[in-house]
Amino acid sequence: MLAEIITIGDEILIGQIVDTNSAWMAKQLNQIGMKVKQITSVSDDAEHIMEALRLAESRADVILMTGGLGPTKDDITKVTLAKYFHMGFRRDEETLNHVTEIFARVNRPMIELNRKQADVPDGCTVIKNKNGTAPCMWFEERGKIFVSMPGVPFEMMYLMDDEIIPRIKAAFKLPVIYHKTILTSGIGESFLAMEIEAIENSLPESIKLAYLPKLGQVRLRLSTTGAEEAPLKAAVDFYAQQIIARIKTHVVAEEDIALEKAILNFMEERKLTLSTAESCTGGYIAHLITQHPGCSSVYEGGAVTYSYDLKMSLLGVKAETLANYGAVSEETVKEMALGAIKNFKTDYAVAVSGIAGPDGGMPDKPVGTVWIAVAHAKGVVSKVFNFGNKRTQNIERSAAAALSMILNELRQHED
Amino acid sequence: MLAEIITIGDEILIGQIVDTNSAWMAKQLNQIGMKVKQITSVSDDAEHIMEALRLAESRADVILMTGGLGPTKDDITKVTLAKYFHMGFRRDEETLNHVTEIFARVNRPMIELNRKQADVPDGCTVIKNKNGTAPCMWFEERGKIFVSMPGVPFEMMYLMDDEIIPRIKAAFKLPVIYHKTILTSGIGESFLAMEIEAIENSLPESIKLAYLPKLGQVRLRLSTTGAEEAPLKAAVDFYAQQIIARIKTHVVAEEDIALEKAILNFMEERKLTLSTAESCTGGYIAHLITQHPGCSSVYEGGAVTYSYDLKMSLLGVKAETLANYGAVSEETVKEMALGAIKNFKTDYAVAVSGIAGPDGGMPDKPVGTVWIAVAHAKGVVSKVFNFGNKRTQNIERSAAAALSMILNELRQHED
Repeated sequence: MLAEIITIGDEILIGQIVDTNSAWMAKQLNQIGMKVKQITSVSDDAEHIMEALRLAESRADVILMTGGLGPTKDDITKVTLAKYFHMGFRRDEETLNHVTEIFARVNRPMIELNRKQADVPDGCTVIKNKNGTAPCMWFEERGKIFVSMPGVPFEMMYLMDDEIIPRIKAAFKLPVIYHKTILTSGIGESFLAMEIEAIENSLPESIKLAYLPKLGQVRLRLSTTGAEEAPLKAAVDFYAQQIIARIKTHVVAEEDIALEKAILNFMEERKLTLSTAESCTGGYIAHLITQHPGCSSVYEGGAVTYSYDLKMSLLGVKAETLANYGAVSEETVKEMALGAIKNFKTDYAVAVSGIAGPDGGMPDKPVGTVWIAVAHAKGVVSKVFNFGNKRTQNIERSAAAALSMILNELRQHED
Repeated sequence: MLAEIITIGDEILIGQIVDTNSAWMAKQLNQIGMKVKQITSVSDDAEHIMEALRLAESRADVILMTGGLGPTKDDITKVTLAKYFHMGFRRDEETLNHVTEIFARVNRPMIELNRKQADVPDGCTVIKNKNGTAPCMWFEERGKIFVSMPGVPFEMMYLMDDEIIPRIKAAFKLPVIYHKTILTSGIGESFLAMEIEAIENSLPESIKLAYLPKLGQVRLRLSTTGAEEAPLKAAVDFYAQQIIARIKTHVVAEEDIALEKAILNFMEERKLTLSTAESCTGGYIAHLITQHPGCSSVYEGGAVTYSYDLKMSLLGVKAETLANYGAVSEETVKEMALGAIKNFKTDYAVAVSGIAGPDGGMPDKPVGTVWIAVAHAKGVVSKVFNFGNKRTQNIERSAAAALSMILNELRQHED
């Protein structure tokens, strides 16, 4: 069974927003054994949507659409779907009541544009969108399923979780897709490939191995598909264990988790605590950590110290250190990390200070210069990096490097 | 002139990564007057890539591809492109030297897999990828341009900025695309539409108006295209000014910037400073702010206080307050904001404390309960929200609500 995702909106094609919906939907579909064949982003244009629909219908069994709904989009998706299926419109009473309720709750008058949100192609089943006014529409035509959802991520997410996924599961007998991901750190893609070449060559046709590199990490993903989970899992795990044994020192996690989540798990098992002291990463490391439920058993908190004053008052960095070496220096970043351990009372602390750019570079410290330190009971280590002159990249790469350094220290001081 | 973007990789279709490359590339293309017709994500499969290429070629003049390169992907994009254009392979000496240099620099032995990265279809022009080993390949065939870039975002970004965009500009006489965006806050999409209906109806055919809603904000985007910028700008600005005059109180910025950037600009002009005190948002607000170059003239820093201890030591929240009302309460969040103002010595501070979920709810405080406070010289205001039980959404919506509250306070106390 194949699915396709069509995201509709000029805002995607001019790069005004990043389409995060597709990845989230693809993940949910994959988990229930529905493979996504293609993701297509098209403009708010009826002809273009029609063409994308025709092509998707020719390839897939389920076509999920987001976006192109709402009064000011002229409900282009809805109108186009009606045309695509040669349907008329009906006003859906339940949707009208729901929209009326929402307007009453926020105490706003309803206008005709809002009432029109309750008009739907007459051959569709309406699924209530409890988080918004645009209804979700479900079509079963020519043996295939077409679903139109609003583009607002949290409206789409609730609809997928509560309605669409259960209905798709009920409509098809889906195969099991089994993935096993191994997260590695500190070894390049081609070296990994060389290390596990013999194992890779011994894989049966039915098991695929993929290498997914990302900022100092490589994920190895073994995938297979079949009727029942148990034998698939047994087969994949058999090879996964061989791989893990072969590259043991580089394996960070035996599941598909983020590096910071692997750190949280490692520290939680050992009852260790962590704090952060961030300058150029500006809270990004804290954000990465606190995305994960349950992080509070390890992570106490931290400081974002952009100014000299806060580096001194919150982290105890000495005025002389800042005056003599500057904020972006080994001396400062070490004092930041040690200050975090002391003031925030944690076992480990990570500190980052750098020039994120695009401006602020100096002859001896160009933009992209980043100092990172990790402190713990046995001392403090530090390292300097240069990540170039793109601010966003600098922040992301600094955070990735900081996480790798924490992990290294944790492993070295495991006993 | 039309472009299409094809992103290649199973990891996109199983939702393991979000395709951020496309939005970034689309933005760059748009800025030079190249409209993006479609974005397509396909699997690491030669047949599927071929089909996507054929369809993209039938619609667009420039086809940009990312991903599907690298030794462990079997360089599927490269192999498929050679097949698509009926080309053979040659070893590119410059690429080989570059790869050799990279391996020498990191002191690693080179293996045959790495040398193969220098093999390219013999009809392409190689563009050096100074940040990685996979070369960028440029094809001019049948009057169209095809470019294959690595999928690693920062490698792609440098290539686009330094090489691809200048070459596309040189290859075509491109029209000017002129966008003007107005950022509004605190008014719904349909009410905005009602307010500016007369202006919208008076727009000439050549000017398109789009409504882009997102978490309490709506962006209005006027777009037009033509040969020269000055007259386009004059025409669009004429209508933009009418819209701005009509909805004045809701206009936050007259350019396409993020809400936090509008706050930074507003505060910078008035020489005001800001700090943050975050619990459930865990550094996300700090991160949003510090993404923007130049934020340090306004933003001093802040605290991420996950634990009770740090709420007390860094922000001066009283132990009795935490004991009597809990961390997620009006009393605590107000003390957090007032503590931030005092300890971090800023004019404004924002504090957030909530239950991000998915667990940790209580009968009187369900998951998603979030208290937000903004403090300044004239006092402190606070508000409670409930954002439901999805952690990521909770964090994002809390941050958006916090930013809106800061903006409201700034505007109310402008004099």
